[in-house]
Amino acid sequence: YKKKAPEPVREAIKEAGGKPILNLTYPYKERMPKDEYEATLHQLQIELVKLQAWAQNAGERIAVVFEGRDTAGKGGAIKRFSEHMNPRATRVVALSTPSNREASQWYFQRYIEHMPAKGEICLFDRSWYNRGVVEKVFGFCTDEQRQAFFKQLPDFEKLITEDGIRLFKIWLNISQAEQLNRMLSREHDPLKQWKLSKIDVEGLGYWEEYSDAISETLHLTHEIYAPWSVIRADDKRRARIACIRLVLSQIEYDGKKDKVVGEVDPKICGGPALIHA
Amino acid sequence: YKKKAPEPVREAIKEAGGKPILNLTYPYKERMPKDEYEATLHQLQIELVKLQAWAQNAGERIAVVFEGRDTAGKGGAIKRFSEHMNPRATRVVALSTPSNREASQWYFQRYIEHMPAKGEICLFDRSWYNRGVVEKVFGFCTDEQRQAFFKQLPDFEKLITEDGIRLFKIWLNISQAEQLNRMLSREHDPLKQWKLSKIDVEGLGYWEEYSDAISETLHLTHEIYAPWSVIRADDKRRARIACIRLVLSQIEYDGKKDKVVGEVDPKICGGPALIHA
Amino acid sequence: YKKKAPEPVREAIKEAGGKPILNLTYPYKERMPKDEYEATLHQLQIELVKLQAWAQNAGERIAVVFEGRDTAGKGGAIKRFSEHMNPRATRVVALSTPSNREASQWYFQRYIEHMPAKGEICLFDRSWYNRGVVEKVFGFCTDEQRQAFFKQLPDFEKLITEDGIRLFKIWLNISQAEQLNRMLSREHDPLKQWKLSKIDVEGLGYWEEYSDAISETLHLTHEIYAPWSVIRADDKRRARIACIRLVLSQIEYDGKKDKVVGEVDPKICGGPALIHA
Amino acid sequence: YKKKAPEPVREAIKEAGGKPILNLTYPYKERMPKDEYEATLHQLQIELVKLQAWAQNAGERIAVVFEGRDTAGKGGAIKRFSEHMNPRATRVVALSTPSNREASQWYFQRYIEHMPAKGEICLFDRSWYNRGVVEKVFGFCTDEQRQAFFKQLPDFEKLITEDGIRLFKIWLNISQAEQLNRMLSREHDPLKQWKLSKIDVEGLGYWEEYSDAISETLHLTHEIYAPWSVIRADDKRRARIACIRLVLSQIEYDGKKDKVVGEVDPKICGGPALIHA
Ligand SMILES: Nc1ncnc2c1ncn2[C@@H]1O[C@H](COP(=O)(O)OP(=O)(O)O)[C@@H](O)[C@H]1O
Ligand SMILES: Nc1ncnc2c1ncn2[C@@H]1O[C@H](COP(=O)(O)OP(=O)(O)O)[C@@H](O)[C@H]1O
Ligand SMILES: Nc1ncnc2c1ncn2[C@@H]1O[C@H](COP(=O)(O)OP(=O)(O)O)[C@@H](O)[C@H]1O
Ligand SMILES: Nc1ncnc2c1ncn2[C@@H]1O[C@H](COP(=O)(O)O)[C@@H](O)[C@H]1O
Repeated sequence: YKKKAPEPVREAIKEAGGKPILNLTYPYKERMPKDEYEATLHQLQIELVKLQAWAQNAGERIAVVFEGRDTAGKGGAIKRFSEHMNPRATRVVALSTPSNREASQWYFQRYIEHMPAKGEICLFDRSWYNRGVVEKVFGFCTDEQRQAFFKQLPDFEKLITEDGIRLFKIWLNISQAEQLNRMLSREHDPLKQWKLSKIDVEGLGYWEEYSDAISETLHLTHEIYAPWSVIRADDKRRARIACIRLVLSQIEYDGKKDKVVGEVDPKICGGPALIHA
Repeated sequence: YKKKAPEPVREAIKEAGGKPILNLTYPYKERMPKDEYEATLHQLQIELVKLQAWAQNAGERIAVVFEGRDTAGKGGAIKRFSEHMNPRATRVVALSTPSNREASQWYFQRYIEHMPAKGEICLFDRSWYNRGVVEKVFGFCTDEQRQAFFKQLPDFEKLITEDGIRLFKIWLNISQAEQLNRMLSREHDPLKQWKLSKIDVEGLGYWEEYSDAISETLHLTHEIYAPWSVIRADDKRRARIACIRLVLSQIEYDGKKDKVVGEVDPKICGGPALIHA
Repeated sequence: YKKKAPEPVREAIKEAGGKPILNLTYPYKERMPKDEYEATLHQLQIELVKLQAWAQNAGERIAVVFEGRDTAGKGGAIKRFSEHMNPRATRVVALSTPSNREASQWYFQRYIEHMPAKGEICLFDRSWYNRGVVEKVFGFCTDEQRQAFFKQLPDFEKLITEDGIRLFKIWLNISQAEQLNRMLSREHDPLKQWKLSKIDVEGLGYWEEYSDAISETLHLTHEIYAPWSVIRADDKRRARIACIRLVLSQIEYDGKKDKVVGEVDPKICGGPALIHA
Repeated sequence: YKKKAPEPVREAIKEAGGKPILNLTYPYKERMPKDEYEATLHQLQIELVKLQAWAQNAGERIAVVFEGRDTAGKGGAIKRFSEHMNPRATRVVALSTPSNREASQWYFQRYIEHMPAKGEICLFDRSWYNRGVVEKVFGFCTDEQRQAFFKQLPDFEKLITEDGIRLFKIWLNISQAEQLNRMLSREHDPLKQWKLSKIDVEGLGYWEEYSDAISETLHLTHEIYAPWSVIRADDKRRARIACIRLVLSQIEYDGKKDKVVGEVDPKICGGPALIHA
C-alpha cells in the first residue's frame, strides 16, 4: 500500500527517513517532551480518579465517544484515560461487526444497551458514528440508511443527554502523512500488526472519501447539546492530554483542582472546522 | 376494598347480583355472543398467522403495546393475539419492577433492549407508559421524571417508528363498575387471585387519580406516527377482536383477506377522546 | 409427504377417515371427555397458581423441559401450564437456531442464561436436548459433539439441581399414526401451517432415526436427580393433565390439595421404557 | 489500620523506611531490573499478539482467572496482559457485587454468561472464587453455600474445560509485609486511593482468616484439568511476566518462539503449596 499514498506524502515520509514527522500545519514543531507529558498525565489521572469517585457518589453517568480514522490513536487515548480507574465502574465498549440479528434491529439499539448506569463511565472505542464514516466509505450501508442515521442522530443524542448522560464526542484527527507513518510502523511493529485490518489497508487508498464522509458527519452532527471536539492527534501525547482535559474541564466534580485541569489547548482542540486545519 | 368503591357503583354491582353488568354508556347491550366471538376470532387468528409469515419473509418488525387499568384485560388480549403464533418469533415482554441499576439508567433503555429484530413480533404487557400512569398514581417517580418522560416520549417513538418498527399502542378502557366487578371476581376466582396485587387493591381507591393520569398521558402522547387506539374493553370479546383487527387492518401482508379483516368497530375503538365516553 | 409414511400407517389413517385415531396400544379407547378434561384442568390450574405464589414467597426456582417429536404437543402443554400464571414470573424459553457466535460457545451456555431466578418458573419449549435428537437426525452436530453432550449432560443437570433448581424433564410421546394425522391436519389447518417447518416435513421420513436417537437420549440421560417422565401424548388432554400433575405432585407447596393433585396416571406417564409401549 | 498490622510487620515496614521490601523468603533479593523487565515484557507481548491471531483463526477460546488478596496486583497483571491485544476480541470481566436477582440464581450463572466465544480471550479480574475466599472472610455467604460451591466447582470447571475452553487459574500471592506496604502507598497515592475499599481496609485485620480460606480454597480446587498456578507477586515485574509466560507456554499457537516464551520461573510459580512459602 505504500504505492497507494500520493506522491508528495511518500516523498515526505522518505525524507523523514522513517522518523516521525509532524504535519506542516501542526501548531507545534516538536512533540510534547516525555517528561512534561508524563508529569501532566499523572496529575490529570489523579483528577480522573476524583471524577470517578464523584460520579459514583452522585450517581452520575458519563459516556465518551472516541472516533477517528484508523491509527488516529483511539485505543491509546482510552488506555490512558482508563488506566487508573476502577475497572468495576469503567467500561470500554468496543463492539464488533454487527451480527445478522443486530443488523436488523434499530441501528442505535446495540449501543444503547451499553449506556452507563449510575456511577459508570463508558468509553466507546468507535461508536454509532461508524455509519457516518467507515460504513459509507466501504459501502456497508445504503444511502438511505445513512440518511436515516443523520436524521435520527440528533434526536437520539438529545434524548440521552437530556436524560443526564454526560456525552463527550471526540474526533482524533491526523494528517495523511502521519497516518501513513503509523501504518508503516504498524507493519513493522509485531505488537501492532494485528491492528492492520483489511479495512485499514484498503482504507489508505480512500483518504479523500474518508475526508468527505468525516466532514459531512461532523458538520451534520455537531449539536449544541452534543458538540464534537476535534483533537489534533499527530502528536499522541498532546492528544491524550487534551482528551482527558476536555472531559475534566466540563464537569464540576468534588475536589477538582482547577489549576491542574486548566483549559484544553485551543491550538489542539476545537470544533468541526479544525479537521480542515 | 368494597368499601372504597363509591356508592352508586356499589349499588350497581349489588343490583347486578354479581352478574357482569355493562357500563351504561357502552354501545352494545349484550356482550358479543360466544359463537360469533369464536368464529370471528378463529378467522382473525388465521390472518395473524399470515401476518407473521409475511413479517418473517419480509424481515418486518412489529411491536404492540397493551396498556390499561388493572383488570382491563391486557393479559387476555395478548393471549388471544399470540395463541397460534410461532413462539420462536413472538415475544411477550412483561417486565418487572426495575432493579436499582435499571432505575438509574435511561428510562427507555430496558424497553429498547426488547425491541423486535427482523421477523419478530413483540407484545408488551405494560410498557414505558408505566411512568405516565401507575408511577404517577403511586408516586414511584418524581414530577420531574414524569415531565422528562413526556418530553422524551414523542422523540423516542418517532425514532423507532421512523426506523421501520410498526408500533401499535392500545389502551384497553374499562368502566369503574366493570373494574370493580372484575376485582370482585378475581377475589373469588382462585385462578386470578394472584392478579390482585397490592397495586390493584390500593389502586381501586384511586379511580380519579388514575383517570387524570390516563387522560393526560393519552393526550400528551397521541402522535401522528404513533397514535393511541382506545378500545372499550367492558366486553372482553369485542375488545380482543378489536385489538387484532386494529393491527391487521393497518398492514398489507401477503394473502390478506380484506373481507375477514374488515374495519375496527368505530363504536369500540377510537382515539384518546374515547376514554371519556 | 403422505407418501413417506409406511404402508400400514397410511392404511390406518385412511380407514380412520380423517378422524383422530388412537394408537392401538394406547391404554384408553377414547380420548378424555371434554367435560372431565376441563373440570380437571381447571382444578389443577388453581393448584398451579398456588404453586407459583409459594415459589415467589419461598424464592423457589422451577424449570420444566418440554420435549417430544414434532407435533407431540409441546406448545399446547406449555400454554395450558402457563395460562393462568403471572407473566412477570413465568418465562417460556423457546430459543431459535443458534447464531454463529452462540454455536461457538459452550453448548449449555445460552440455556443457562435463561435459568430461573428466585420465584421464577421457566418452561422450555425444546431445550439442550436438541443435540441428542433433532441435531443427530439432521446432522446439525458432529458425532463428537453429541458424545461430548452425553458426557457433560449428567454433570450439568446435577449442578443445577443440586443448586436447588427443581428440574422436570417431560418427553411427550406420540405414535407414528398420530404424528401423521397431526401433520395432515396441520397441513389443512391455516392456524397451524406455520408449524410445518422443513424440519417437520423432512423429519416424517426419519421415524426410525428419530426413534433411535430418542431412545438413546432418554436412556443416557435418565438420572436419579433429573429423571425423564415420558408422557403418552396421543390424547392431548390426558397428556396436558399429566404434565401439570407431574410437577404439582412432586412439590410440597403451601395450600396444596392432595386430593386434587392426586397421582399421575401410571398408564400415561412413566420412565424412558414407556417410549417403547 | 496501621494499628491492625501485627508488631513485627510494622517494625519491618518502619525499618524499610517506606521503601519496598521483599519478603524474607522471596527467592530474589532484588526486584527484576526495569530494563530487563521491559525488554522481556515486550517480547512476550509480541507472542501474545500471535496467540490472539491464532485463537481468532482457529476459533479457540481462552479464559484466565486472576485471583489474589487485595493489592496482589490483579489489575496490573491484566493490564500488561491485554495492553497490546485487540479490544474487540479481548474482554476484561470485572463483575460487581451481585444484584439481588443474580444472588438468587445459580452461583456460576453470571460468570458463565461471560465465557469466551470462539476467538475470544477473557480475563477475569476476580471470579467465582470470591465465594471461597472474600465471601467466607466477610460472611457474605453461608457455610452451606460455600460447601456447595466446593462441591460444584470441580464439575463446573470440568465441563467448561472439556468443552475446549482453555482455563488458567492464577493466584497472585503476596506477603503480609508487602500487602501492608502497598496499602500504605495506596493511601498516599492519589491514583490508587479508590482501590482502598472498606473491604480492603477491614480485610487487613483478617490476614489469618484469609490465609485459611485461601489455603482451603486452593487445595480443594486444584484439579488436574484446571490446576492453580500460584505466582509469587511481591515483585510485580516478575509476577506479570510469569502470568504471561504461564499462558503462552501451555498453548501451541502459530509462530510461537519457544526461546522467547521459555519456561515459567519455578522459583516464582508453582502449585498451591507455594502459598506457604
Ligand atoms: N460488514 C460490516 N458492516 C458494518 N461495519 C463493519 C463491517 N465490517 C467492519 N465494520 C466496522 O468497521 C470498523 C473498522 O474495522 P477495523 O478497522 O477492522 O476495526 P478496528 O476499529 O478494530 O481497527 C469496525 O467498527 C467494524 O465493526
Ligand atoms: N442448523 C441448525 N442447527 C442446530 N439446530 C437447528 C438447526 N436448524 C434447526 N434447528 C433446531 O431444530 C429444532 C426444530 O426445528 P423446527 O421444527 O423448525 O422448529 P419448531 O420446534 O419450532 O417446530 C429447533 O429447536 C431449531 O432450533
Ligand atoms: N455483599 C457482598 N456479597 C458478595 N460479594 C461481595 C459483597 N461485597 C463485596 N463483594 C465482593 O468482594 C470483592 C472485593 O471487594 P472490593 O475489595 O471492594 O473490590 P475490588 O476487588 O474491586 O478491590 C468484590 O469482587 C466484590 O464483588
Ligand atoms: N416501585 C416501583 N417502581 C416502578 N414501577 C413499579 C413499582 N412497583 C410496581 N411497579 C409497576 O407497576 C406495575 C403494576 O404492578 P402489578 O399490578 O403488580 O403488576 C408493574 O408494571 C410494576 O412493574
